[in-house]
Amino acid sequence: MLIVMKKNATPEQIGAVVKAIESNGYTARPIPGGDRVSIGVLYNKGAVDHHRFSGLAGVKEVIPVTKPYKLVSREFQAEDTVVRAGDVSVGGEKLCIMAGPCAVESELQALTIAEHVKRAGAQIFRGGAFKPRTSPYSFQGLGEEGLKILAKVRDVTGMPVVTEVLDLGNFDAVEEYADMVQIGTRNMQNFSLLRRAGQSRRPVILKRGMSATVEEWLMAAEYILEGGNTQVILCERGIRTFVTHSRNTLDISAVPVVRRESHLPIIVDPSHAAGYRDQVISLARAAVAADAHGLMVEVHHDPDHAMSDGAQSLYPEQFETLCRHVRAIFEVMGQGSEVRGQG
Amino acid sequence: MLIVMKKNATPEQIGAVVKAIESNGYTARPIPGGDRVSIGVLYNKGAVDHHRFSGLAGVKEVIPVTKPYKLVSREFQAEDTVVRAGDVSVGGEKLCIMAGPCAVESELQALTIAEHVKRAGAQIFRGGAFKPRTSPYSFQGLGEEGLKILAKVRDVTGMPVVTEVLDLGNFDAVEEYADMVQIGTRNMQNFSLLRRAGQSRRPVILKRGMSATVEEWLMAAEYILEGGNTQVILCERGIRTFVTHSRNTLDISAVPVVRRESHLPIIVDPSHAAGYRDQVISLARAAVAADAHGLMVEVHHDPDHAMSDGAQSLYPEQFETLCRHVRAIFEVMGQGSEVRGQG
Amino acid sequence: MLIVMKKNATPEQIGAVVKAIESNGYTARPIPGGDRVSIGVLYNKGAVDHHRFSGLAGVKEVIPVTKPYKLVSREFQAEDTVVRAGDVSVGGEKLCIMAGPCAVESELQALTIAEHVKRAGAQIFRGGAFKPRTSPYSFQGLGEEGLKILAKVRDVTGMPVVTEVLDLGNFDAVEEYADMVQIGTRNMQNFSLLRRAGQSRRPVILKRGMSATVEEWLMAAEYILEGGNTQVILCERGIRTFVTHSRNTLDISAVPVVRRESHLPIIVDPSHAAGYRDQVISLARAAVAADAHGLMVEVHHDPDHAMSDGAQSLYPEQFETLCRHVRAIFEVMGQGSEVRGQG
Amino acid sequence: MLIVMKKNATPEQIGAVVKAIESNGYTARPIPGGDRVSIGVLYNKGAVDHHRFSGLAGVKEVIPVTKPYKLVSREFQAEDTVVRAGDVSVGGEKLCIMAGPCAVESELQALTIAEHVKRAGAQIFRGGAFKPRTSPYSFQGLGEEGLKILAKVRDVTGMPVVTEVLDLGNFDAVEEYADMVQIGTRNMQNFSLLRRAGQSRRPVILKRGMSATVEEWLMAAEYILEGGNTQVILCERGIRTFVTHSRNTLDISAVPVVRRESHLPIIVDPSHAAGYRDQVISLARAAVAADAHGLMVEVHHDPDHAMSDGAQSLYPEQFETLCRHVRAIFEVMGQGSEVRGQG
Repeated sequence: MLIVMKKNATPEQIGAVVKAIESNGYTARPIPGGDRVSIGVLYNKGAVDHHRFSGLAGVKEVIPVTKPYKLVSREFQAEDTVVRAGDVSVGGEKLCIMAGPCAVESELQALTIAEHVKRAGAQIFRGGAFKPRTSPYSFQGLGEEGLKILAKVRDVTGMPVVTEVLDLGNFDAVEEYADMVQIGTRNMQNFSLLRRAGQSRRPVILKRGMSATVEEWLMAAEYILEGGNTQVILCERGIRTFVTHSRNTLDISAVPVVRRESHLPIIVDPSHAAGYRDQVISLARAAVAADAHGLMVEVHHDPDHAMSDGAQSLYPEQFETLCRHVRAIFEVMGQGSEVRGQG
Repeated sequence: MLIVMKKNATPEQIGAVVKAIESNGYTARPIPGGDRVSIGVLYNKGAVDHHRFSGLAGVKEVIPVTKPYKLVSREFQAEDTVVRAGDVSVGGEKLCIMAGPCAVESELQALTIAEHVKRAGAQIFRGGAFKPRTSPYSFQGLGEEGLKILAKVRDVTGMPVVTEVLDLGNFDAVEEYADMVQIGTRNMQNFSLLRRAGQSRRPVILKRGMSATVEEWLMAAEYILEGGNTQVILCERGIRTFVTHSRNTLDISAVPVVRRESHLPIIVDPSHAAGYRDQVISLARAAVAADAHGLMVEVHHDPDHAMSDGAQSLYPEQFETLCRHVRAIFEVMGQGSEVRGQG
Repeated sequence: MLIVMKKNATPEQIGAVVKAIESNGYTARPIPGGDRVSIGVLYNKGAVDHHRFSGLAGVKEVIPVTKPYKLVSREFQAEDTVVRAGDVSVGGEKLCIMAGPCAVESELQALTIAEHVKRAGAQIFRGGAFKPRTSPYSFQGLGEEGLKILAKVRDVTGMPVVTEVLDLGNFDAVEEYADMVQIGTRNMQNFSLLRRAGQSRRPVILKRGMSATVEEWLMAAEYILEGGNTQVILCERGIRTFVTHSRNTLDISAVPVVRRESHLPIIVDPSHAAGYRDQVISLARAAVAADAHGLMVEVHHDPDHAMSDGAQSLYPEQFETLCRHVRAIFEVMGQGSEVRGQG
Repeated sequence: MLIVMKKNATPEQIGAVVKAIESNGYTARPIPGGDRVSIGVLYNKGAVDHHRFSGLAGVKEVIPVTKPYKLVSREFQAEDTVVRAGDVSVGGEKLCIMAGPCAVESELQALTIAEHVKRAGAQIFRGGAFKPRTSPYSFQGLGEEGLKILAKVRDVTGMPVVTEVLDLGNFDAVEEYADMVQIGTRNMQNFSLLRRAGQSRRPVILKRGMSATVEEWLMAAEYILEGGNTQVILCERGIRTFVTHSRNTLDISAVPVVRRESHLPIIVDPSHAAGYRDQVISLARAAVAADAHGLMVEVHHDPDHAMSDGAQSLYPEQFETLCRHVRAIFEVMGQGSEVRGQG
C-alpha cells in the first residue's frame, strides 16, 4: 500500500501517519518525492484495509498495491484447478458445455430438453428449481419437486445436474439432489450463503454479480475456499452498463483476466448476457474463442411457452449449431495451444 | 404492452401473435401503422411477462407499458406512508436523521457516538452488528453482542436503533433487539430475506442495490408489502458507475422519481454514496434540498481507528455542521412547500 | 410512436394530445386499455421527435416504436455494403486485418512495422499522424509529416493506409494522403466533421463513442451517408463501464446487433478495448468468432519506447500469433456459414 | 508514479525497469516489500505517461500518483477564479443563474423567454444557434441568424448571452456576437476546438463529457488555460449510467471534488441531467445545496411546441419557483459559510 501525502503536509502529519502504520503492525517507509512525500506500507500479510489511513490529516490518497485475495490467486496456486462432477470435469484443457431450461417446469419438459442437449453435445444439465424473480408475482420455480425432477434427469441421461440455491433454508436439499450448486448473480455477495457453500461437499458455480468487479468476484470465491471447498467455477454472465440492445454486456476480457489472476476455471453464460436469442450463438463463440473453460446455455424445446426467460432460450436446433461452432473453434485453437495464456 | 411486428411480418405471423395473446387471457388489438403493424395487449391486470411474446415469429420488439409494481405504487395508495419506530416517524412532512458508526465496536464506542449524534440532532441510532464485508478476512461485526449494545444504547438515550440483517439465521435476533431492520445493498434482491421481512413486525429500511433500477428496487419493496409488512423505507445510497472520485454515484433524481411513483418514504445515505468524508456534507445537503425524507449518516468519534469504513465517517463536529445545514435547508424549503411535488 | 396517458387523464387531455398529433401532420389512433388510454401515432415517415409530446398534460410516457435511422438500416438496403480501398475490400464474406502503430513516429519506425504486419497478414496499414490526446502536454503526432510517411508506406508496401482526422482544418490533407479516413471515438458526435466526411471521396471508419448507444452510432453514420458518402465502416472499440481491469469494455454483442440492423461492415479494435497487451489476442479472437468483418490492431516493434499507447501495442510476434489464430477461427466458421446471421 | 513488480520478477527485470526510468530523465527508487518490489518514480515534473512502463518485463502494475493537470489545479492557484461577462460574474461567493431556451427559434420567442427569465432572476441568457443533434433530420438551429437574435436580446434586456460553438468554422462568428462561448458535451475532447477556445477573448463554459472522468474534464480545461484563456467555467450536466428514469445521472459529488481540485467555477445544468421537466427543480436545489457556483436551466414559454428538448424545458412559472427556492437555499447556507469547503 502506498500513502500519498498532500503537498503541504507537515512533518508532524507525516510522523502521525508513520506512527499509525506502525501501530497497526506494519512497516512504514517514507519516500520523499519531488514535491510531496509518499509512504510505503510494507510487510503486510494479505490486504490492509485502505480506509484505515485515508482519513488521516495530510493524506491525499491511499493506493492499494497488493491484491486482497489469496487462496483463489494464481500466485498461491500456479496450476489450474479442475472441478469434477460425476465423471465430467471443468477446467484444464477441456471444454465443458452445460445446458438446459431456465426453469424446470415438469418432468416431461426437463427430460425432453435433456435428451436434446445431450445429443447435441452438452455434458451437464442445468435447470432452476428455486427461481430468483424480480417480481413476487412471477413463477418462482417448482421448489423441491423441481429438485426431484433434476435427479430423475440424471438417472435417465447420466448427465450431472446443476441448479441454483437461493438461501440457507434450501441449501441442504439442493446439495442432496444436485451434483453442483449454483450461486446466482444477485447472491454473489450473500456472505452467509458463501460461507455455507464453503462447507458444501458439492462443487459450486459462482456467478459474477451484475456490477461486481473481478476483484470483488474473486473475493466472494475466497469466502468459499476459505471455508474449505476448493471446487469453485466462476461464471461470467454480463455486467450492467448503459447499453440496452442486450440485457447485459458480456465482459469478455474478464476471461483472460481471471485466467491470469486465478487458478479457478471460468465459464461464460451467453444467454443471460445477451437476453435475446439472436445474440447467444455469437457470444458463445466469442467466449470459447477467448478461452473460456465452458459455457452455460439456456435451451428450451418450446421457448414461446417457457415459464421464464423464453426470449433468451435457444431452440434445440440452434443449440446444435452452437455446439458445432464452438467445438470447431475450440479444436482449431488447440493447434495454437502453445501460445495460449501468452496472448 | 405493445408488440411491434417486423415490416415484412406476414398476416399469418400477425394472426399467431394475436392468438398467443388471447390464449394467455388478454385482449389483442392490432394497430395498422404506416409500414408495420403493432399489436396492443389490453386488460391485463398487473404486468405481463414481456419475454413471453418477444420470441414469436415476425415480432420485432415488445414494449412494456404499465409498471409491474402495484402495492408500492402511488396509483395504488395516493397518500404518503409514514413509518413509525418508537415515537419517531419517517415520511410525510418531517425530516428524520439517522446516524451512528458503521459497525458497533464496543459499548463505550456506541454510547459515546450515540450521545454525540443525539445532541447534534439525530433521532435514530444506526450501527452494524452483522457486517457484510467484501473480504472474509475483514472484521465481520460483533454479532449478537453488538445487538445487545444497540439495545443498551436505546435504553440509555431513548433513541430507536436500526441495524442490518444479513440472513434468515439472524433475522429473529435482529428483530428482537432492534426497532428497525435494514436490508443492505448486496441483499436487495435476496428474495428469501425480503419474504421474511414481509412477515416482520418491524419497519424495514431497504437499501437500493448498487446497480438496481428504481423499478427493480420498488419490486423488491413489493415483496415485503406483498408479505404483509407495509412499513418500508427506501434508502438511496449511490449506484455503481464509471466514476472513481466517489465510492458510488449518488442518484439524486431517484428522490423525485420515487416520490412520484411510490407512497413509501425515501431517505438518502450520503456516506456510502461518497465514500470520502469530505463529500458527505455536500451530498447530505443536496439530498434534503431534493426533498428526501431523511438521511442515514456514518459518524465516528475516532474514525482514524474505526474498524470499518472510517474514511467516510464524519467527525462529531462535522456531523453537527451537517445537521445545522440540512435543518436550515429543510426549513427554508418549507416556505415554498406549496410547490413541492409540482417541480 | 405510442403515447401512454396517465390513469386519471381527462377526456379533454386526451383530446388535446390527439389534436397535437394531428397538427404535426400525423394520424392519432387512441387505444382504450384496461385502466388507461394509449394513443398510437401513425403514418410517420422517419422518426418523430418524442420530446414533442412528452410534456403535454395527462401524458405519462412516450414510447418510440420505429428506429430513427434510415439510410444505414438493413430495412433500407438488404445486402451488405462492401467498402473498398485500393484493391482491398472490407465487408461481405472476407476478413480484413488493419494494423500498425498508434502513432507514426518516423519513417523508419513506420516502415519497420509495416513490413512486419504485412508479412503476418495485415492488409491495411494504420498509423496516427494527428493524435487526440487527453493532455495538452502529451505527444500530439507528427502532423502533415506523418501523412507523408504514411504515403511512403503505401508506396513501399502496396498496403492502403488509414489515419485519423481530427478537425475540418486537416481534413483535406488527410484525404489527400490517406486511402481511408478514420473518425475517432471522441469525435463520433462531432457533427461538422461527420458532414465533411459525407462529402469525402474516401471511405470512412467511424469509431463508436465511448458511451454511445448503437442507435446513436448508427445515427452518426447516417450523417455521412446522408451527405452522399456510402463507404462507411463501423468500428467497435469498447465502451466505458465501471470495470477497471481493462481500459474499456468490449461490447461484443454490438457485432451481431449492427449486422442485423445495418448493412455497413463492422470491425473491432481490440487494442483500445483492452488497453493492456495481454488481453488483445483474446479479444481479437472473440471478435472474429462473433462475426466481425475485420480488426484494427495496434502493433509496435518496440512498444516499451512507443510515443503513445505502448502498453496496448502488440509485439510483432504476438501479432503473427493473432493473425494465425483469427484466420483459423474465421476459416473453420466458414464451414458453418449457412447458419450465420441466423444465430 | 509507483511501479509494482511481479512477485517473481528477477533482479535483471528490476534493473531494466530502473534503467528505463532513468533513461526517461526521472529518478528511480526501489522499495523492497514483503514479497515483491515496488519502484517509485521521483522528481517528475507534471505527469509521466504511465503506459511507458506498464509493458516492461516483470511489471505487474503501474500506479499514477500525481495528477496530470497543472494550470487548472488548486495546488497551482489557491484562490477561486471569478469569470466575468459584462457586469455579471461567475465564481467566488455569488450564485449565477443562466436560463433560456434550448434553441433560439425566432426573435419573438427569444425576447419573450428572456423577459420571463430576467424577471424571475436569471442573470445570463442562454440559447442555441448551432445545435448538435443526434439525427441529421432534426432541426439544426438558426445559425448566424440565431446569433443576431441573441445580440438583440442582450441589447434589449442588458443580459450577457451565451451560446454553443460547434466547430472551428463558426467560432469567429460566435465569439463576435456572444458574451460567453459554450463547448458542449460531445465536444469536450474536441481538442482542436479547445485549442481555439484557448485563444478566444471570450469566457468559455466547458460542459463535461457524457462519460468523462473529472480528471479528463480538467485536462480538457487545461488545454484552454494552456492556450492563454483563463476564463473557464466548468458545467456538470449528468453522466451516462445504466439508469433510465432520467436522461443522464447528475454527478452531484463532482461539485465538491472540482471545488477541491480546481480554482475554476463550477455550475450545474439540471435540465440535461434530468431530461424530464418534473425532476429539474429538485436537481437545481440539490446543485445549489452542494455549493455549485451557478445553474444553467432550459426554459420555454411554450415547451409543447419547442423545436428541441421541450420535455426538459421549464414553464416560466416553474422557473420562478426554481429561482425562489435556490436563492433561499443559497442564502440560508450563507449563514454557515464558515464551514463551507471544510465538509
